[in-house]
Formats: sequence, structure tokens, C-alpha cells
Amino acid sequence: MASHAIRGALRRTFTTVTAIRTPATVKTARFVVPSLMASGGALLYSWLQGELWAAQKDTGVIDTSTFMAAPITELSKLERNPDDMKTRMELLIMRIQSEFCRALEAEEEDEHVFTVDRWQRHDPKEGGGITCVLQDGRTFEKAGVNITVMSAPLSNQLQASMRARGKELPEDKQFTFFAAGISSVIHPRNPHVPTIHFNYRYFEMQDEDGNNKHWWFGGGTDLTPYYLDESDVRLFHGTLKNACDRHHPNHYPKFKEWCDNYFYVKYRGERRGVGGIFFDDLEAENPNEVFGFVKDCAEAVIPSYLPIVRRHKHDTVSEEQRRWQLLRRGRYVEFNLVYDRGTKFGFATPHARIESILMSLPLHARWEYMHQPQPGSPEYKITEVLKNPRDWV
Amino acid sequence: MASHAIRGALRRTFTTVTAIRTPATVKTARFVVPSLMASGGALLYSWLQGELWAAQKDTGVIDTSTFMAAPITELSKLERNPDDMKTRMELLIMRIQSEFCRALEAEEEDEHVFTVDRWQRHDPKEGGGITCVLQDGRTFEKAGVNITVMSAPLSNQLQASMRARGKELPEDKQFTFFAAGISSVIHPRNPHVPTIHFNYRYFEMQDEDGNNKHWWFGGGTDLTPYYLDESDVRLFHGTLKNACDRHHPNHYPKFKEWCDNYFYVKYRGERRGVGGIFFDDLEAENPNEVFGFVKDCAEAVIPSYLPIVRRHKHDTVSEEQRRWQLLRRGRYVEFNLVYDRGTKFGFATPHARIESILMSLPLHARWEYMHQPQPGSPEYKITEVLKNPRDWV
Repeated sequence: MASHAIRGALRRTFTTVTAIRTPATVKTARFVVPSLMASGGALLYSWLQGELWAAQKDTGVIDTSTFMAAPITELSKLERNPDDMKTRMELLIMRIQSEFCRALEAEEEDEHVFTVDRWQRHDPKEGGGITCVLQDGRTFEKAGVNITVMSAPLSNQLQASMRARGKELPEDKQFTFFAAGISSVIHPRNPHVPTIHFNYRYFEMQDEDGNNKHWWFGGGTDLTPYYLDESDVRLFHGTLKNACDRHHPNHYPKFKEWCDNYFYVKYRGERRGVGGIFFDDLEAENPNEVFGFVKDCAEAVIPSYLPIVRRHKHDTVSEEQRRWQLLRRGRYVEFNLVYDRGTKFGFATPHARIESILMSLPLHARWEYMHQPQPGSPEYKITEVLKNPRDWV
Repeated sequence: MASHAIRGALRRTFTTVTAIRTPATVKTARFVVPSLMASGGALLYSWLQGELWAAQKDTGVIDTSTFMAAPITELSKLERNPDDMKTRMELLIMRIQSEFCRALEAEEEDEHVFTVDRWQRHDPKEGGGITCVLQDGRTFEKAGVNITVMSAPLSNQLQASMRARGKELPEDKQFTFFAAGISSVIHPRNPHVPTIHFNYRYFEMQDEDGNNKHWWFGGGTDLTPYYLDESDVRLFHGTLKNACDRHHPNHYPKFKEWCDNYFYVKYRGERRGVGGIFFDDLEAENPNEVFGFVKDCAEAVIPSYLPIVRRHKHDTVSEEQRRWQLLRRGRYVEFNLVYDRGTKFGFATPHARIESILMSLPLHARWEYMHQPQPGSPEYKITEVLKNPRDWV
């Protein structure tokens, strides 16, 4: 098993390796970005990212200095294939991971930072991941931001499940798949700050001869509040809608509905939270267009969530509210273990890194027999929304 | 939904209904039993139960005064069919429930007693159950003892799963099933007291015309310690082995192994606990023999567990030990939600009473990323046993 690696130590090693790779322009950008983020300069930021990308393309050198750890794929391979979607997705999720971790750390007291665990699969040729976890912080009780980049033979079980989902895979062929994804669940301490989850992933599949190639993107961002603050939910959904609308007017309504249907706990008759967007098997004539959409969604995470954290992280909390939060975290556990497709995919993947899959579970959860909130109470109000999803924007 | 019913209130109503049904001999027995139990007079107790049974048969009157609530099946129907296995099983589980609840209450401080919830299915003709829960006690953090007695059409999903398990069910017939079972999970407060689970159940299945009849018993008792006390585990397994050996010398080794295999969390490579016995689809020429075996197993629960509770309930506890207990309770949740057949059966049963199924979940659970006990520590020692099951008797 990979051992615990404290960020300081890992970062030092890592800096040694990559310092020489950092072009000057990029160094400047690195320090400018956070202040831009804080002032909400999303467009300027986007422009800056474009410049960064251009700089990389010009020099052929990839700046990794802001990442949480070295990329999973060898840097020279990434640099040789800058236009390959595998490279672009890996670099996107590395960047998103780092930006999100930094943004969360900025909401913490200073001693609480992310622990960075860079791990490899049992066969390092199959890839690995980088799991960043902040546990028992002042603002975040458990925050996990994980990236995985792997390339492995597709097990028979997964092959069958792909066929069931409509992928045309000839029975007489063996397939390998490539997957690069970021997955994150943030459980804050204050019950007035919602839990957020997001996951963006890219899949490629082909047979032994490099034929029968399939590729697709999947992902989504969804919010699980413990108490209903309608303006929070509107901000959240509105930010996701803006990202969607830049690509297709149907995206948001379609993926919002998909999200409501996906995060449904049938035996409870309720959703996990107030939804967001969810999509899978997304493909198009032009992969660049889909990548651009996924990138915009992933970049919408911080502006959709951090303002809500800042707004509520110091709200006063009663014992009753904490108890309610823990009961709802129990429901979160139920969804993730009983229904979540990503978790099931993990359980079905040979040699899967279970700790990185189950980092989504909260630090604490509670189950009381027959707990039912008083009709009319704030606890009751949120359960009504979980039973009857609303339109927010 | 059924509402919360406080035992006192329910007991009062219930006593009014059944007081006149109590024969004098039975009344005496009721007060003698606890002191016999305490002095370990198992044989005498067994004899007394036989007397009780004889008294019932003589008079045709069933004494329900010691039960936690009125039986699910109408009393007159039970009294008309004393030899029907459905009656015998319902009365057995009613008695076991009550004895076990009383025995647990005796380990509590006096204000902590079981709440009794007698509930019916959406269609009361399909039966219901009695869920007894003691929550947030001094000795028991969460203790649930549930009986279910139901008779309903077999859903297509369950019909398919029965066929997959080897039951011969003609495709062109509709089936109804009868199930009577007791299921219990006890999560004590002190980490030195193990969690216990047991479940004993009787199934009958037949088509619309009353043909193609199948019946079988299933069940088991298993222990989940947080710290390994070998003499506890030997007492536990030894008591179960004695019950098994009275019926067949192969029962214990066979059902012990079945238990080790059943409570296996594949993705963790560990068992839920130190096992016990587990069996399913148990049938024989003579149903009385199987019933007798199940009865002996169910009666072995108290002597296999209560001495361990008494031994450790006042052990001193460090913060670290409590934390370890909660982490292991997280694993308990994982098994129950991801693997447990009873839970899955419940999820697949239309209109299932989810709160009674999930009462098995602990009051508190915890998940830490990458927690690993120090090699050689007491926490490590128990995980070794979970990875490599041992023979205890």
C-alpha cells in the first residue's frame, strides 16, 4: 500500500524535479491567479489560462510547479503529445485539483493543509493517482480531491457493463481502457455549509489492435445542503447553468434533470441533495467542443461553491443542528455505498485503491431509528426539497 | 408510516387485551425464569419452556403476556393452528425477542428501556413486525431487536433471485411467500464489548393453488469485537458449537466456515468480525428437527453474549479506543450496505420498512482516510484475525 506522504516533504522532492521546467511567464501567472480569483475576475483568469496554454505549446515545456504532485504520466510523454486528449485531460484535472485545494485551504486556519498522496497501481505501468485529503480542519471536516489516471485491461465484468450501456464491443476482442478523472467530496464542519461533490472524467477504450475505439466524457457537480438557503442554491445552480449555456441551451435543463434522477435513493424516496448537473457518455463530432464544455464545468466549481462556504462557515450552530448534519451524512453514506456508479465501478476494478474511492465518506455519520423532523422545522423544509426537486434558475 | 410508540403506553394497551389469557402456571414461570437465567440453569430453563409449551397445548391458550407486543398474526388464528410451523416460528421469535430485550435491559441503568414499535405493512393483511430499539443507553449505544411476520406475493425480482438460488419455481405460476424472522444487532458503548448480530428466519413459498410448496430455515449468530479477547471469542464460539452439536456433529464446522465466507468484505480483504455460525436454505425430511435446531441456536444467543457484556461493560476506555471503535463501525456499515443479503432483500421488497432494516446501522460511525493501526498494537491484532479467520473451539 502507498504510505502517507505529508505535503511538505512531497512538495520538496517534487519542486526539485520540476523547478527547472518553469518558464518565467508562468511563474508570474502563478502568483497573480489567486488574487484574480478572489476578485472574481473569471474572464481575465480564463484569458490568462489561454496564455499559459499558449506558452506551453510554444516552449513544449509543461509547467507543473503549481500542481499538488508530479503528473501520473511521465512528463516527457505528456510533452511529446500536447494535443492528445489524454494529455489535455490529465493536465486539466491536475490544474483543477490544485486550484480547488488552494481555494479550500484559503478558508482554513493556517495549520490545516491538504495531505498529498501520490500512489501507483500494483502495476505502475497501469498508472495511479493523487489523493489530496484535508481531515479534521476548522472549516472542513473532511475534504478529498482525487485524480486518477489509469490505463488497464478492461475486466470481463466491466466489459459486460459497458455493453449493457450501449457500447459496441465485439465479443471476441480484449479491450484496454484509459481513464483520467477528478473526483472530489467536501464535507464542511458547519451544518450551514453544504457538502459539494464533483467528478469530471474522460474515457478511451480500444481493442488489442488499436481498433474499435470509443471515447466519451462524463461528470457533474452537485450540492447537498443540510439546511435550505435558497439564495445559496440559486447561486450554485446559476453558476452551473452559465457554464452549460456557453455550450448548448439544452445542456443545463437536460443535465439538471439527469442529476435529480441519478442521485435518487429509491428506498428513501428522496434525492441525496439539491442536485446540480450530471452527464455521462458525452461524445460529439468534435472532441474539442466536449472537452471545452467539461473544462468550463470544472472551472465553475470554485465560483459555485466558495462564496457559500465564506457566507456560512462562521454561522452559529446548535447541538441539534450538528446532530441533523450527522444524520444527513448517514444518508450520504447510504447513497454512495448502495447506488453510486463510481463506487461500484471502483469495487469492480481489480486492485482498485479503495481508500481513494471511499475518501468520499464523511468523517462522522449517524443513524437514529425513526428520526423524523418536526413538520414545519428547518430540518423538515430541506427534506421536502429532497422529495420534490425544484427548478432554481 | 407507523409512529413512535413508547413501550409503557403500548404495554398498557397490550396488557389489557391479553391479561385474561394468562394461565396461572404460566404466570409463575414468568417470574422464575430471570433468576434461573442469572444462575445459568439452562437445562432447567429448557425443561420449564417445555412445560410452558405443554401448558399451551393443553389449554389451547397462548400466553402472550411476556411478549414485547401482541403477535402480528391474530391470536385466535395462532391458537387454532398450534402445530403449524408458521405459528411455532412466530411464537418462538416473539419469545426470543422478549427474553433478549429483557436480558439487555438488565445490563442498562434503569431509565434505559426498549422502545417498542409494532407496525403493519401498507396492506395489514400482509403482516408486519415489532421493532424494539434501545438508543443512547449507558451500556448499549444502539440495540435493535426486530421480528417480522409477513405473507405477500413474491415480486418478480425476488422470484428470479430464488430461482438463481436453486428453488424450483415454475415460470408460469405466481407465488406467495410467508416469512417469519427475528433479526438483531447490538452496538454497545464500551469498545471492549463486541457487537453481536443474529437472525433466525423461516420461509414458506407456494403457488396460487397451494402447490409447489417450498420451506426452509436460515439464520446465524456472529460477533464483531473491536479488541480481541480470546477467552470471549472462545466462550462465544463454544456456546454456539454446543447448540450445533446437539443436532449434528457437522453443523458447527460447516456453519462456522459458511459464516467466515459470508461476512467477507472482498474489497477490504477482511471479514466483518470473528464469525460464528451462518446457514441458509436449511431443510430436512423432518421440519421439527430443523425447527429444534433453529430454536437451540436462538436460545444460545443470551448465554453466548451476555457474559461478555457483563465482563467488559465497565472497562476503562481511552479516546483512541473509542475512535477505533467508530472506525470499525464504519466497516460494519460498509458490509451491511454493500453485501448483506438481508438488507438487499429488504431493498428489493416493495413497501419494505426501511427503518427496521437499517436499525442495524450504528448510532455513530467514522471514516478516516488511510487509517492503519500500528503493527503490533491491539488494533492491529484484531485486523489480523479479520484477515485470517481462526478456529476457536
